[in-house]
Amino acid sequence: MNFGSDNVAGAAPEIVAALEAANRGAAMPYGNDAVTARLDKIFADLFEHPVAIFPVATGSAANALALAALTPPHGAIYCHAEAHIQNDECGAPEFYSGGAKLVPLGGKDGKLVPADLASALESAGIGIVHHVQPASVSISNETELGTLYRPDEVKALADVVHRYGLKLHMDGARFANAIAALGCSPAELSWRAGVDALSFGATKGGALAAEAVIFFDKTLAEGFAYRRKRGAHLFSKMRFVSAQLEAYVKDGLWLKLASHANATAARLAAGLARLPGVELLHPVEANEIFARIPERAIEGAFADGYYFYKRGDVNEAGARCRLVTAFDTRLEDVDGLLASLARHLGAGARRAG
Amino acid sequence: MNFGSDNVAGAAPEIVAALEAANRGAAMPYGNDAVTARLDKIFADLFEHPVAIFPVATGSAANALALAALTPPHGAIYCHAEAHIQNDECGAPEFYSGGAKLVPLGGKDGKLVPADLASALESAGIGIVHHVQPASVSISNETELGTLYRPDEVKALADVVHRYGLKLHMDGARFANAIAALGCSPAELSWRAGVDALSFGATKGGALAAEAVIFFDKTLAEGFAYRRKRGAHLFSKMRFVSAQLEAYVKDGLWLKLASHANATAARLAAGLARLPGVELLHPVEANEIFARIPERAIEGAFADGYYFYKRGDVNEAGARCRLVTAFDTRLEDVDGLLASLARHLGAGARRAG
Amino acid sequence: MNFGSDNVAGAAPEIVAALEAANRGAAMPYGNDAVTARLDKIFADLFEHPVAIFPVATGSAANALALAALTPPHGAIYCHAEAHIQNDECGAPEFYSGGAKLVPLGGKDGKLVPADLASALESAGIGIVHHVQPASVSISNETELGTLYRPDEVKALADVVHRYGLKLHMDGARFANAIAALGCSPAELSWRAGVDALSFGATKGGALAAEAVIFFDKTLAEGFAYRRKRGAHLFSKMRFVSAQLEAYVKDGLWLKLASHANATAARLAAGLARLPGVELLHPVEANEIFARIPERAIEGAFADGYYFYKRGDVNEAGARCRLVTAFDTRLEDVDGLLASLARHLGAGARRAG
Amino acid sequence: MNFGSDNVAGAAPEIVAALEAANRGAAMPYGNDAVTARLDKIFADLFEHPVAIFPVATGSAANALALAALTPPHGAIYCHAEAHIQNDECGAPEFYSGGAKLVPLGGKDGKLVPADLASALESAGIGIVHHVQPASVSISNETELGTLYRPDEVKALADVVHRYGLKLHMDGARFANAIAALGCSPAELSWRAGVDALSFGATKGGALAAEAVIFFDKTLAEGFAYRRKRGAHLFSKMRFVSAQLEAYVKDGLWLKLASHANATAARLAAGLARLPGVELLHPVEANEIFARIPERAIEGAFADGYYFYKRGDVNEAGARCRLVTAFDTRLEDVDGLLASLARHLGAGARRAG
Repeated sequence: MNFGSDNVAGAAPEIVAALEAANRGAAMPYGNDAVTARLDKIFADLFEHPVAIFPVATGSAANALALAALTPPHGAIYCHAEAHIQNDECGAPEFYSGGAKLVPLGGKDGKLVPADLASALESAGIGIVHHVQPASVSISNETELGTLYRPDEVKALADVVHRYGLKLHMDGARFANAIAALGCSPAELSWRAGVDALSFGATKGGALAAEAVIFFDKTLAEGFAYRRKRGAHLFSKMRFVSAQLEAYVKDGLWLKLASHANATAARLAAGLARLPGVELLHPVEANEIFARIPERAIEGAFADGYYFYKRGDVNEAGARCRLVTAFDTRLEDVDGLLASLARHLGAGARRAG
Repeated sequence: MNFGSDNVAGAAPEIVAALEAANRGAAMPYGNDAVTARLDKIFADLFEHPVAIFPVATGSAANALALAALTPPHGAIYCHAEAHIQNDECGAPEFYSGGAKLVPLGGKDGKLVPADLASALESAGIGIVHHVQPASVSISNETELGTLYRPDEVKALADVVHRYGLKLHMDGARFANAIAALGCSPAELSWRAGVDALSFGATKGGALAAEAVIFFDKTLAEGFAYRRKRGAHLFSKMRFVSAQLEAYVKDGLWLKLASHANATAARLAAGLARLPGVELLHPVEANEIFARIPERAIEGAFADGYYFYKRGDVNEAGARCRLVTAFDTRLEDVDGLLASLARHLGAGARRAG
Repeated sequence: MNFGSDNVAGAAPEIVAALEAANRGAAMPYGNDAVTARLDKIFADLFEHPVAIFPVATGSAANALALAALTPPHGAIYCHAEAHIQNDECGAPEFYSGGAKLVPLGGKDGKLVPADLASALESAGIGIVHHVQPASVSISNETELGTLYRPDEVKALADVVHRYGLKLHMDGARFANAIAALGCSPAELSWRAGVDALSFGATKGGALAAEAVIFFDKTLAEGFAYRRKRGAHLFSKMRFVSAQLEAYVKDGLWLKLASHANATAARLAAGLARLPGVELLHPVEANEIFARIPERAIEGAFADGYYFYKRGDVNEAGARCRLVTAFDTRLEDVDGLLASLARHLGAGARRAG
Repeated sequence: MNFGSDNVAGAAPEIVAALEAANRGAAMPYGNDAVTARLDKIFADLFEHPVAIFPVATGSAANALALAALTPPHGAIYCHAEAHIQNDECGAPEFYSGGAKLVPLGGKDGKLVPADLASALESAGIGIVHHVQPASVSISNETELGTLYRPDEVKALADVVHRYGLKLHMDGARFANAIAALGCSPAELSWRAGVDALSFGATKGGALAAEAVIFFDKTLAEGFAYRRKRGAHLFSKMRFVSAQLEAYVKDGLWLKLASHANATAARLAAGLARLPGVELLHPVEANEIFARIPERAIEGAFADGYYFYKRGDVNEAGARCRLVTAFDTRLEDVDGLLASLARHLGAGARRAG
């Protein structure tokens, strides 16, 4: 019963089945296959807009390649201090961009604030040769703290981004969770809100290894095919990556899977909120929960066979923990974890009593 | 009936089955899973030597990351003028190494000549600050022209490489075809012959997307895990890459698959050699065939539904063509292609008569 | 009367004379000349320690090359948020290091705090593949806010730096001002205090264009000659750079020039402190002054022909200004500027009265 | 008496005088000074065309920065196999371009052949994602073998370059020698002949350290100021670099200096041609001479206090040597060297007799 991350889950059966189907017969390599050829239309329909789509196999590849396309080596990429690109990709964006600088900004619950972004850009020294030049802004939706930007919030940021001549990138490793939770259309949360490039994630949502870089302005994709090949992210048997993406969005599978993850997270969050001594640290809007939990309860739950991330920051009230649900999280495991925590908290309370 | 490349084939059933097996239950991400944990021992046993093994998903990633580990930005990588790293990876080795220079050398049938390598290194200006510094040599085995280096030939090159303080890398995208054809052990063709780092390929051999960088001297792997992550080639659901590698080498599957590819290539080559006006351009030692074929026969075969690569270089005798067989090439397709070519050659001959 | 920076000054006559002397006759290029050959001993004597010294011509080259030698592409460089390498070199450290990440830290008056550095390193995720790895710490002495680290303060930071296995770099663009002000020896403020590599500046101190990267542990200089050449910072007529460095430190010229700059800064600071409505923002310890000055006085002084930097941050009390003195700053210009400011402040006061 | 290179010479008195003149008073840093401000018009007049000019201090910086502006990281730079950028800059072009690939071509006497370039580009795989993409061509004029491209020869190459959508760069480290020898205008040998970017050299011609990147199409200079700063080649006391450039071209000084170097080379070449056993290896068209000289004569001349480069390639007729004259080469040294060689050759002849 592993609540450590949504990438501890395997792959959805529909996607495995698609792999098997894609395995029939020969196919031209490097994306010149029939499945990959279909992706343009499939995603243009999904986003109600022409797109330039480039399948890759890791989220870091999607982010780093997309940001490199939007940012020159002497450029700056603005993001939240909690952003995955800033903290968890070992400098992949710097590597792919040729040494651009990431500029971390604050913001409640993992979300950038338009006014703060504007003042940061205002004082960045645009046009002054001594300073790296602001080129792009990257936001994650679902954010790294489990919260969501609404379309109008994205729009408000995009207005600042574009006013200063920058481009807006969205890290959509959990884009499905955001769409499923907000009930808006992919278009509303992306290009209509001002997103220029999207890292569309499928791996965390139920694929084996499939992501896509999506440009809504094809001129931004110039040279991108070479960047991807040069980064060694062009697959010879590309059909096996493309087939995952096709199956993932077919008949709304991606939203069905994400809705389940969101629903189990909601159930888990509600239960945690009722536990004495457990504190939710951020609004739970999709499939990630951040909570402060007394140490004894954490250890007890781990001993009972449950797992989730215990972060460094610890105080007398407990440790900051991250719990994530996935497309295949079982309700009984959610309830089991809640019961385990309750039992160990109660025991503690009794000992304290 | 596609003889364009071995990467037009799908995946072997045993490997697909392994993916399905790996999909059961949760697993820790980023290589902290049970399957990945087994690879160290599996490959140490296979190579009869301790190894540091790093799964990736493309051959270019394996090559570029391995070479970057062996070569500083101011270094030079020596390779054959026909090498995949020199011609077909859009500069991935330059990108990953931080701008090292590839130095192409000649050599019959795609193989480097020890004496030529030695004289190139002798005149490279080692220790002179104006010149990039020789750091590594990369050879492909099976070579890009379908030929093979025997263990003693690798050893002769390795002696030169090490005499000058360089490291030897082997691009083993078709290592299985080489081992199957030579009947030697993986150890004999790698570390025992002086190979320091090997790109071990599985994709062309029958996997969906799985390769591995293997270091025989673990000190060369220092910092490699960061390079891989930074290159965005560390997979969150790593078990799906590792499971392919495990299944590929289990019970000799990799050699069984490669032997079939080699045997069908031999049958095809023998048939081509008997065709009037068809000339084999290099010894056929594994699963790649290079032949000059009259244009009318090429067009006829294509019209009959066969496909292979027709290279630019054309003369009155015909065009330079590459034909590749795979683990799933059917004998009837080989014979069918030969019959088609014979028919169109004969027709031509008649027209000529 | 330009107080904008110490690089608005020209070159000291002794250094121009040395250029002329160096111009006699032929000399071998690229550092194989007699002047350059003398630098090793000259600087080993100056620092009472063997050194590996590499002349370059800009401070950014010295910093970026030195940091690249101490930091792998997947590494992190810790520095103060006000550091020149972080704000004023357009990403040169990122470029030369191959995309390392700079991590800015706070600290009063432009100085890092050992405890803050330690806790930042403690939570940096050392050894975890997802995170860039702390590799070096860079401090400026004289700092960008005109303050100084004493030898024991450098030592306290170095202890933290080395406890975590990192290397300590010092940006000494104004090292002379620090030595002259503190009255300690170059050794005490560098290697004896734990500095591993020093950017030794001469340009701001009175040279035309001359800096040097100095390593106190020669093993850290491995490959550095290639880095410098590759960065296009190896001069063919190197004697002209080396001659500046030789003249700069000969007979204590560098400290004589720096003492003058420091003394005029002290006089200017004392005068500013006496002006009504003018506030000194940081201790004035060398040749840089930061003060908040009422706008009308700034404009008045500019109208009178004086110049200094007026920074963005403005409030009702005035604007944040930087005033810098140089080796050739004239006392009458200091007094003239003070009189001009006093006059315009008085006028303002009268208007206000 | 050093004929090793023109960079063994010092600086011309007029240029040293200009440095002294530039040293009077304060000046704004980083190119915001009066001298630098004049360069635009000075060079626009010199080239009879608007230019974007960027002073730097080394020829490698000019070449690497210019090529990086014309070539993406996934691009290829075509040049002669003897080119300085290919052999003598330790990979600076690769570093600045982010890992572009240099493609060396042959050509008699160090000059590219339009037809060879065209066929190389024809087979380069333009538009194919697996191959680096041809982006620029770089030629040296004066070439590394002491020969010259005439305006019509440059034009013939430029036509091929532009037909394939590439840009043409000229390494003009010895541009003055070419102009002085050909008697054409700077315009005729650059933009009128199709050159897009020129590395304009002054150092070898008589400056201390001054070069300039000149773009004839200002749109190609977009972002160049950031590249230069990021490469740490923007000088704080820029007036000292700019003053050298201004003095160098003032009143035709550059051509006067180059004409002297060319004339002494012609005299030396004529003398060498008359010596028994000495063979000139390339036409001597400017200030570089390549000759095969018997070993005993080389050793004798060295013993007599003369110096020039003896290259690796040696046969029974002698060693391949390079002799270079400079703006300050004395006629008596030329005649002295010839006499020394003659004496030692004669002695040898006698011994042989």
